[in-house]
Amino acid sequence: MTTTVQDVTDLYPTRDGERTRVIERRDPVVQGTAEQGPMDAETLRGFDTKGYLTVDELITGEELELFRAELKRLSEDPEVKADGRTVVEAKSDEVRSIFDIHRSNEIFSKIANDPRVVDRARQILGSDVYIHQSRINYKPEFVGKDFTWHSDFETWHAEDGMPAPRAVSISISLTDNYSYNGPLMIMPGSHKHYISAQEKTPEDNHKQSLVMQGAGVPDPETLTEFADRFGIDVLEGPAGGAVMFDSNCMHASNGNVTPYPRSNVFIVYNSVENTCGEPYAAPKPRPEHIASTDFTPAGR
Amino acid sequence: MTTTVQDVTDLYPTRDGERTRVIERRDPVVQGTAEQGPMDAETLRGFDTKGYLTVDELITGEELELFRAELKRLSEDPEVKADGRTVVEAKSDEVRSIFDIHRSNEIFSKIANDPRVVDRARQILGSDVYIHQSRINYKPEFVGKDFTWHSDFETWHAEDGMPAPRAVSISISLTDNYSYNGPLMIMPGSHKHYISAQEKTPEDNHKQSLVMQGAGVPDPETLTEFADRFGIDVLEGPAGGAVMFDSNCMHASNGNVTPYPRSNVFIVYNSVENTCGEPYAAPKPRPEHIASTDFTPAGR
Repeated sequence: MTTTVQDVTDLYPTRDGERTRVIERRDPVVQGTAEQGPMDAETLRGFDTKGYLTVDELITGEELELFRAELKRLSEDPEVKADGRTVVEAKSDEVRSIFDIHRSNEIFSKIANDPRVVDRARQILGSDVYIHQSRINYKPEFVGKDFTWHSDFETWHAEDGMPAPRAVSISISLTDNYSYNGPLMIMPGSHKHYISAQEKTPEDNHKQSLVMQGAGVPDPETLTEFADRFGIDVLEGPAGGAVMFDSNCMHASNGNVTPYPRSNVFIVYNSVENTCGEPYAAPKPRPEHIASTDFTPAGR
Repeated sequence: MTTTVQDVTDLYPTRDGERTRVIERRDPVVQGTAEQGPMDAETLRGFDTKGYLTVDELITGEELELFRAELKRLSEDPEVKADGRTVVEAKSDEVRSIFDIHRSNEIFSKIANDPRVVDRARQILGSDVYIHQSRINYKPEFVGKDFTWHSDFETWHAEDGMPAPRAVSISISLTDNYSYNGPLMIMPGSHKHYISAQEKTPEDNHKQSLVMQGAGVPDPETLTEFADRFGIDVLEGPAGGAVMFDSNCMHASNGNVTPYPRSNVFIVYNSVENTCGEPYAAPKPRPEHIASTDFTPAGR
């Protein structure tokens, strides 16, 4: 009998009780090529450097209207609100996020498997991709809450068992993004550096962390260093546009006291060569609607 | 014996239990002239139209450093924190505002009476001016809280007995204002329209309203109409700059999750021909440190 010794070294340790520390990213950011299309070499280079790219007018006209109407319908549907995959804000009793919409909703399933989106994700990740997570996010007018700085990959690695940062998110705007209604903020270039968090993951952390970040949040000193070093890009742009960003981008958003709500469809594509296993730093994996174990390639 | 019949009609009724309604402003915005200086006709016209103006580099170099050091010293002084004129945020136990600094602090008293500031206020209001209120505002990094939309004049009229919107505020930035660290937002042109609020003033409203706006806050429908009609200007700019804005501007600011705090010195000048009397819509006047009854002209 031969025994294969696997290299089980965790390149992205986190929540291990050690001090917060910055680890250089070992994996490439862009794994596909310009030849594969649809994006050109300059766009891919921009993504590699900044960790994100924007797509103007991904959705327009009647399709955008359809999405917006569906968004409104879902937020007002009592069954959706009562569903375990919906996050309701305690204070206002309003729907904040609806998870797993690529499986529960026909309209959003379609866009999650649409070549306009999937081909770009494939090109960035250099392989077929599957949907790790999907959701609709509502940031209501006047009372929209903030999200503090975090790397999605840190959570997906720690709690969902995602081996490497070979995943990309797309946020499709269904409302206009102004600097003043709590838009996405990204520290460009931060995706090449991994912040290993100190605090261990509490039991059932996800029940808290979807509403307010808890474990995995970098300390103030490291965040300040990152902001001074990388700056902060504010992602403005009209409804129908989209932002694709690397799973390890340091990002956040402020609250929203303006009369203009901010809503988007959010889909996470992971490489089929990077499927999730056991969590790296959590007692048990998060539920299926937050971290899918269906690794079927999207858009095929 | 002759009896003088005074005209006691309140041109700016509010908090009277009637529905929220918009009343056109009766008083001029700019009451002085370009000839008086220091500002030219174009600057005054801009103020009249938009309800605010900005001054670059009002404070620079060593003076700015002096102000910043004093700001830091005050925020860390236990005596200041315990003082009744200091507002401490309940949740974080941090100093949020220090009132009456034009009387309690030598450094800020000096700038509050400095010709660079007072001459501009005089020119806008067309008379000598006195200080109705002064304060330092701290919006800390990471946890800075928002302020919802309001007109200062609505409060000063209802609770402080200020007859007409013949007052101007100056906010001197002691930190850089970015679109993302919760800067001042103004609806340009809103100052020519007065939103009469519905809700009556609760007893000792100021104890709550300095931390979180309560009575006097316009309803969501009117705010949305105003934002659609006037738009929202975001006031960015480096430390040492200042914004002067009309007392009836609709303004607000978002929270701040970034590593960059936002602090300013805030001084309100009222015309000596517009001194405060009995509140128009409150059981009793607010305390002296919030609404001064010393009408001595500033800077004389």
